[in-house]
Amino acid sequence: MKRFVAGSLARGLISRGGYMSTAEMMARPASMQRVMMNKQQSQRYYYWSRMMSSVAEKSTEVGNGGGVEAIKEEEKQKIEKNGDEEKGMVNSYWGLSRPSIKRPDGTDWPWNCFMPWDSYEADLSIDLTKHHVPKKFLDKFAYRTVKLLRIPTDLFFKRRYGCRAMMLETVAAVPGMVGGMLLHLRSLRKFQQSGGWIKALLEEAENERMHLMTMVELVQPKWYERLLVLTVQGVFFNGFFAVYLLSPKLAHRIVGYLEEEAIHSYTEYLKDIDSGAIENVPAPAIAIDYWKLPKDATLKDVIIVIRADEAHHRDVNHFAADIQFQGKELREAPAPLGYH
Amino acid sequence: MKRFVAGSLARGLISRGGYMSTAEMMARPASMQRVMMNKQQSQRYYYWSRMMSSVAEKSTEVGNGGGVEAIKEEEKQKIEKNGDEEKGMVNSYWGLSRPSIKRPDGTDWPWNCFMPWDSYEADLSIDLTKHHVPKKFLDKFAYRTVKLLRIPTDLFFKRRYGCRAMMLETVAAVPGMVGGMLLHLRSLRKFQQSGGWIKALLEEAENERMHLMTMVELVQPKWYERLLVLTVQGVFFNGFFAVYLLSPKLAHRIVGYLEEEAIHSYTEYLKDIDSGAIENVPAPAIAIDYWKLPKDATLKDVIIVIRADEAHHRDVNHFAADIQFQGKELREAPAPLGYH
Repeated sequence: MKRFVAGSLARGLISRGGYMSTAEMMARPASMQRVMMNKQQSQRYYYWSRMMSSVAEKSTEVGNGGGVEAIKEEEKQKIEKNGDEEKGMVNSYWGLSRPSIKRPDGTDWPWNCFMPWDSYEADLSIDLTKHHVPKKFLDKFAYRTVKLLRIPTDLFFKRRYGCRAMMLETVAAVPGMVGGMLLHLRSLRKFQQSGGWIKALLEEAENERMHLMTMVELVQPKWYERLLVLTVQGVFFNGFFAVYLLSPKLAHRIVGYLEEEAIHSYTEYLKDIDSGAIENVPAPAIAIDYWKLPKDATLKDVIIVIRADEAHHRDVNHFAADIQFQGKELREAPAPLGYH
Repeated sequence: MKRFVAGSLARGLISRGGYMSTAEMMARPASMQRVMMNKQQSQRYYYWSRMMSSVAEKSTEVGNGGGVEAIKEEEKQKIEKNGDEEKGMVNSYWGLSRPSIKRPDGTDWPWNCFMPWDSYEADLSIDLTKHHVPKKFLDKFAYRTVKLLRIPTDLFFKRRYGCRAMMLETVAAVPGMVGGMLLHLRSLRKFQQSGGWIKALLEEAENERMHLMTMVELVQPKWYERLLVLTVQGVFFNGFFAVYLLSPKLAHRIVGYLEEEAIHSYTEYLKDIDSGAIENVPAPAIAIDYWKLPKDATLKDVIIVIRADEAHHRDVNHFAADIQFQGKELREAPAPLGYH
């Protein structure tokens, strides 16, 4: 592989400003190299270093209108010379790239949507039995709504917990994103600090999405299930958006109760795995890297950590609702960051 | 201060799964303690440790309907006993808290919306002169739209660059959030990986919001400017949402050109600081911590790093547009993560 010197860009791209662990330091290459994704991900990526000095020289030509084309042609020739004629390669003047990143054991890090520093160990000591007893009218409304929604869900999925998890995570990942976005917009137009809540809710949304990315390695959706997911997303996104605008405390309370139901469902999932009704297959690679599970982890280990995550989300959302039920704004109490 | 043992929760809350730096390790307390925010932030927060064992005991009472009230009363009495009668305190059964976090020099970390590991050093070697020469019809449409929008903007702000930065950052922080959210929803309903682009765009939005949080320490908006920001947000959010749905590549190209204009404006801002037309005041504390600036940093240093950030966003968005102009999806090229 031809090596390109990236210099300060590589340092800029992967430097975390002095907060790098030893593992991260070891992962930093002195020079950047072309990396091919392994077939496990069914994707190939090519990383080109940003040729700092040559780019700086070329930038003066860009304004001529022919500069970008000339550069693209030159880079294209370089690619062909190296025998890279596979489709899927992106050639761009902007030349941004991701440097080679390694796991602590030295193997290539295959994921793009999360980095080694994003992985964590779930808190398995979390109390799974906690429940917010509905006291106010909105609490009761939230609780009854969630209990009502459970009825058609149970009728549709029955004990197909893999399918249930795979499809319901597409729903679970919406509230955090909607809430985070609306808090972000409010922070901007009011010129106010967020208390960390934007980040906390976006973290929750990303975590739920990672649950989905994990489940989809195990259970593939059929065409009518995809159609159902599409429809439900359209309805739920708009509905939750409206609820969050009208009553954020109701929105958070609903999510808290939804998470309580999720914990119950995952507990039933574990029962079926233990009884043999559902096969305890090996854990997908993405789950092993994301939750820092042992190499021989199984589906059961994955469901246990996912359930612990849901318990944490339950706490965060009920806490958020409590803050607002006490007449305060979220930003008046620091968000519980750092779990994920 | 009464100390509460937090045990595994503290480890769970702040552990980054083995990727902690020495500074982060030193910041971890063996037990959690109540932290008071310094007056610089004009806020006071009280952090209560999560009393793991007592909470687990109490959880069995919760279902009785009286459990939560009983716990709240007990916690309330504890607060009063400690002489904490200030308003603004949030008392919640869920008891989530943020552990004491310190700067590398041992002083308390006063910010909630970003942690020490979120701060970074800007890449000042980035090429500020790069420009995407419009080639295709949509390029030209994007370029002319941005140039047209510049006209009323220049008329309104003239050379009031502080005010310009403060107000336009409320706009700049919208596209990343809208794009990130739409990619998130797509990833969910299509059961597809994101290539890291959700995170990259949300990072951009958060970075622009931090620009705003910095500028608002220096320039306070007047009532009519707040009204204008409100109106512009309503129009721009919906408009950009629609554009991103219809043509993501056009959306990214527009943002790329907006960032080019931002670089130009910040360069003019620096000229006015150098000439003395704008006073070169000390940098706000939030900027010093966020960009890891020296303690005696000034407004000029802040504008230089903000401008470097905008150059990075220009690159990311033009790159995103290029990928899509080549007929590919964003997820086919790994997102340039790790800059911020």
